[in-house]
This record gives sequence, C-alpha cells and structure tokens, in this order.
Amino acid sequence: MLICIVYDSVHGHTKKQAEAIAEGISRVPGAEARLVSVADGDIPWETLAASDGIVFGSPTFNGSVSSRLKKFMEDATRPAWLPLAWRNKVAAGFTNSGAMHGDKLNSLVTLALFAAQHGMIWVGLDLFPGRSAEEPNRIGGWLGAMAQSDDVAPELSPIASDLATAAHLGQRVAEIAARLGASA
Amino acid sequence: MLICIVYDSVHGHTKKQAEAIAEGISRVPGAEARLVSVADGDIPWETLAASDGIVFGSPTFNGSVSSRLKKFMEDATRPAWLPLAWRNKVAAGFTNSGAMHGDKLNSLVTLALFAAQHGMIWVGLDLFPGRSAEEPNRIGGWLGAMAQSDDVAPELSPIASDLATAAHLGQRVAEIAARLGASA
Amino acid sequence: MLICIVYDSVHGHTKKQAEAIAEGISRVPGAEARLVSVADGDIPWETLAASDGIVFGSPTFNGSVSSRLKKFMEDATRPAWLPLAWRNKVAAGFTNSGAMHGDKLNSLVTLALFAAQHGMIWVGLDLFPGRSAEEPNRIGGWLGAMAQSDDVAPELSPIASDLATAAHLGQRVAEIAARLGASA
Amino acid sequence: MLICIVYDSVHGHTKKQAEAIAEGISRVPGAEARLVSVADGDIPWETLAASDGIVFGSPTFNGSVSSRLKKFMEDATRPAWLPLAWRNKVAAGFTNSGAMHGDKLNSLVTLALFAAQHGMIWVGLDLFPGRSAEEPNRIGGWLGAMAQSDDVAPELSPIASDLATAAHLGQRVAEIAARLGASA
Repeated sequence: MLICIVYDSVHGHTKKQAEAIAEGISRVPGAEARLVSVADGDIPWETLAASDGIVFGSPTFNGSVSSRLKKFMEDATRPAWLPLAWRNKVAAGFTNSGAMHGDKLNSLVTLALFAAQHGMIWVGLDLFPGRSAEEPNRIGGWLGAMAQSDDVAPELSPIASDLATAAHLGQRVAEIAARLGASA
Repeated sequence: MLICIVYDSVHGHTKKQAEAIAEGISRVPGAEARLVSVADGDIPWETLAASDGIVFGSPTFNGSVSSRLKKFMEDATRPAWLPLAWRNKVAAGFTNSGAMHGDKLNSLVTLALFAAQHGMIWVGLDLFPGRSAEEPNRIGGWLGAMAQSDDVAPELSPIASDLATAAHLGQRVAEIAARLGASA
Repeated sequence: MLICIVYDSVHGHTKKQAEAIAEGISRVPGAEARLVSVADGDIPWETLAASDGIVFGSPTFNGSVSSRLKKFMEDATRPAWLPLAWRNKVAAGFTNSGAMHGDKLNSLVTLALFAAQHGMIWVGLDLFPGRSAEEPNRIGGWLGAMAQSDDVAPELSPIASDLATAAHLGQRVAEIAARLGASA
Repeated sequence: MLICIVYDSVHGHTKKQAEAIAEGISRVPGAEARLVSVADGDIPWETLAASDGIVFGSPTFNGSVSSRLKKFMEDATRPAWLPLAWRNKVAAGFTNSGAMHGDKLNSLVTLALFAAQHGMIWVGLDLFPGRSAEEPNRIGGWLGAMAQSDDVAPELSPIASDLATAAHLGQRVAEIAARLGASA
C-alpha cells in the first residue's frame, strides 16, 4: 500500500510536518509513504494514480494554501480530474502557519474541496483538543493536522506535539486506506 | 447495514432531498436507510451509534444550516462526541436553498467540520458538473449534494436532477460504508 | 451614534468578550454601545434598525455559531432582511471557544456571510498577530475578534489579551461607523 | 478617487467581469477605475497604495482563486501588508466559474480573509437573489459578485445579468469609498 504526501514548504517547517505524516504512515504494516514536494518540479502523476491515498499539505499564507500548491491543484486537472484517477482514494490535509489560528482552517477547507472534486474520501483527526501545549492537537483542529511555527529553524519548530498530531493523521490515513483496500 | 439520515426541513423541500438520499441508499444490497427528522423531537442516539453511517441535511438559511439542525449538533456532544461514538463511520451532507448558489457551500463545510470533530469519514460526490438542468449535479458542488427549490410545493421542487444528485450520494455513502464495514 | 452588540453566551465567557467590545466602542466620543443578549428573549428590532452598526458574537460550538445565535439570524429575515433595514451599516463579529483554533474561523465566516446578505459593511481587525500570549491578537485572526476560554469562571478566562483584542475591534467599528455616518 | 481592480483571467471571461466592475465604478462622479491584470507582470504597488479601494477578482479553479492571483496575494506581503498600506481602504471581490455553484464561495471567502488581514473594509452586494436568469444576482451570492461562464467566447459568456451584478458591485464600492473618503 502506497500513500503519497504532496506538499509545499518554503522555509522547511511544513516539510517537517510532511515527514511526520510519513512517519505515521510507516507505522502501519505494509504501508509505504512517498514524499512529493511540488517545488521539485515534475509531479509523478502515474505514481499518484497508482497510490492508495494522497495527503496534501501547504503552509497557510494569507489565509490559504501557497500559490505553488495551488498550481499543483490546477495542473492535476488533465492527468487526474478528467479521468477521475483519484476517485475513492483516501485524502487528508495538513497546514502550518506562524500564527496560532492564522486562518489555517481555510487552507484545510480548500484542500478538502479539491479532494471532494476528485471524488476522494476525506479523513480528518479523531483527537480531542490537547489540554496543554505538550499534547497532540494542542491547536484544536479536526479537518486536518494543524501546526504553528515560530520564525526559527525547522529543527526547533513546529514543536513535538504538532508533529505528533501530523504523525497520528498519517497513521490514521494508512489504517483507513488499508480497510478500504482490503475490501476492493 | 444501516445508514441514518438526520435532517431538518421546514417547508418539505429538504425532506424530498432526504427521501432521495434514502432511495439511493436502498439501491445497495443489504443497506437500510432510516430517516430522522430533528423536528420530531427525540433523537434516537442509540440507533445513530449503532449505524454504519450518517448523512446530515439541512436547508441553507442565511448562509448556514438551520438553527434546529445546529441544535441537534450541539445536543450530540454528550451522547456522541464525548464517547466518540461515531468515530470512523461514514458521513455525508446535503443542503437546499431558494437561490442557485445561496452560500450553500458554507452549510456543507459546517456539516463536514462537525463530522470531522466526531472522527467520521467524509464522502462527497464523484460527479462532474451537469451540462444542463436535466443532468445530475447541475448546480456544481462536490462536498455534498446541493439542491435549489422554488417557492412552490415540494412536489414540484427541487427538480428531478437535484433529487438524482441526492440519490447518487446516498448510494455512494452506502457503497463506501459497505467497503469499510466488510474489512472491520 | 449607537452600536449594538448582539451576542449569545452560555457560560459567561463570550459575554466578557461582548462587554470588552462595548468598552472599546465607548472610547470613541459620541459612541454608545448597547448589549443585546439573544437569550433574553425579545429582540429590539427597532433599536437595531436605528443603530449605526451591529457587532455579532457567539461561542463557537461544533465549528459554528450557537443554535441560539443562528435562531436570531433566522428571526431577522422579516424585520431586517426583507426591508434591508441594516443596509450599509457597519458590521463585525467575535467568537470564543475552548480550543485555541477550534474552527473559530467558520463562525466568523458564517457571521460575515449573514452581514453581507443584509448589505452591511464588514470591519475586521487591523492587528498583526501577537508575538506572545500577552499581546492583542495572540490567536491570530483578522475577520473578527477571537478568544479562547478555559473551563474556568469567566473572571479568569478569556485572558486580558483576548479582551483587549475585542475592545480594539469595538473601537474600530465605532470609528468606521463615525466616518460613514459623518458623510451620510 | 481611484479604485483599482486586481484580477486574473485565463480565457477572458473573468476579464469581462473585471471590465463590468470598472464600468460600475465609473458611474460614480469623480471615481476612476484602473484595471490591473496580475498576468501582466509588474504590479503597480504604489498606485495600489495610493488608491481609495481595491477590488480583487479571480476565476474559481478547483474551488479557490487561481494560483496567479494567489501569487499576487503572497507578493503583497512586503509592499502592502508589513506597512499596512491598504488599511481602511474599501475592498470587494468577484469570481467566475464554469459551474453554477462551483464552490465559488470559497474563492470569495479567501479574498475576504486576505482583505481582512490587510485591515481593509469589505463591501458585498446589497441585492436580493434574482428571480430569473435575466435579473442581477441570478446566482445568489452576497459576499461578492459571482458569474458563471460557459466554454464559449467571452463575448457570449458570462451573460448580461452577471455583468450587471458586477457593475452594481463596482458602483457600490465607489459609493462607499466616496463616503469614507469624504470624512477622512
């Protein structure tokens, strides 16, 4: 089972979140994670079409996904949307911003709408809000995994609880994909 | 397999949509649909907890779900959210309004956020936008099933294509629930 | 000049935010604030129609405004929407929830859509995100004033910076209303 | 008084909408409209900073603004957001898509969040939903002006009522900007 993680990261903080998603996926026996950075250029459309699920991630800039991630969404029209190549695949999303709230929700809604247009099945978090900064889902979101990053090196931020939140989502995506795939 | 449809309807138009969802569910062998109107009073929380999926529906009033449907969402906190009784169930949504656009999207987003908070798995439409008023998804939404109703009797509105859209979503929810249940 | 604050509050935390909005309004010479709790029953529709601006506030429950605030929105159709009685009045919004993010944005979007349907003019925050928990806009929102409350007495939560954020919005609403009114 | 219209258009349909906004602005004595296409490259940041209002427009692709319009939003951070150069200017938005609904609302919400982050004042439509395809606001939106375009030449689509809706919004923006400016 293959789960791809299509993400954008400018300063490396969202990349840390993407790697945490991958780590969570790899906890599920038989599940493999592949990271796809939209900044790297060529998108492996055939790999995405052959995958069992795709997790989309982006920094939240100005209350929405990055223009580079948006460009990926537009480029997907011909190879993925017209043939509905991602139909019934599992989808999920994650985002990161400097502010605690930062209108992150609008990025996740934007990703969920994109996934819905592709006929994908959306998996969010099954976590209560963290009661402290050390607990997963400290920020308190459910549609996807949220992180907050200070203007420091990615080694320092986002903090462990945000990465644990992302890893939890990755594991959950793989578990649901496994259930859907087993019955296909 | 049981799929519940929890809905509000004031003038009967959204009820027509709910019945179309039920008809779509019943197309799937082994799937049973149960309609739950929030206006009827007692909510069958145990039936909802025992179901395989829940489809939520509401008219869009003032750009969001009705206050009665919202009240149901709040009342679900104790019986459903705290024990995460709906975790991993399939969820979907539908809405109806007098205007063609009518900010219906905000109602569906509100329902999807509610479902995500409950740890549910969201299923939208896998339909291209209809190319005429006679085709399913003539309105062009994906997060859920949209309908538009004129100020006439529910027998006349919403029109057949909107009801076909709802039925398609109901069938799809049952199919995905069957796949998830088969592997549980 | 009169600015009304129409709000719901169940446990008193959002009421604290409403009072902070009122305090901010009163900083502007000639501006008077009137608090209207939707739980008190009769809505003073004529006062609202005679006001220069209305600020709407609600707790965020399940990722949207409370059912009681939503009921107010629906009840406004006949006295306010049909005659467009609030057209060109200034509008703003605030919300409070237990989680830091808590999908508060969806409540503010819901309020902004409601105000837009009434032909109102929406005023948000002109504040950079706070760099610490002591600074205004510590949560990082712009469409309106956000607060986060712990499950303690309203005297203790929301904290001072969230109330300062609300007061700033109140002052801003009164300032913009004064400018619009001066030229009417 | 100067109102700028910053827009993206790929096939020319959204450009028609932008031109209708400009026509509406020009109906107000003393108001001048300037069209700024983000595809033309250099953005006139100083003109935008000197303007009295900015209307943002984009096609809705995949349920959000175009990547080129999003790129403009990101590029505005240094010249406009950091100095809050657009604070208290009037803002508005418009969008166009092939489908009737097409998740256009999410594009308008994205633009409104962007404007709020810049401390701008948001003006929507004060129009009831059109009762026929010939009437303004036939689509039924309020946060901004919506249009629907078929896959034909821009001379044929969007239709006259959608352009009238856009023109109405342009006129309204200029009127509100005049009132705000007169009292500044």
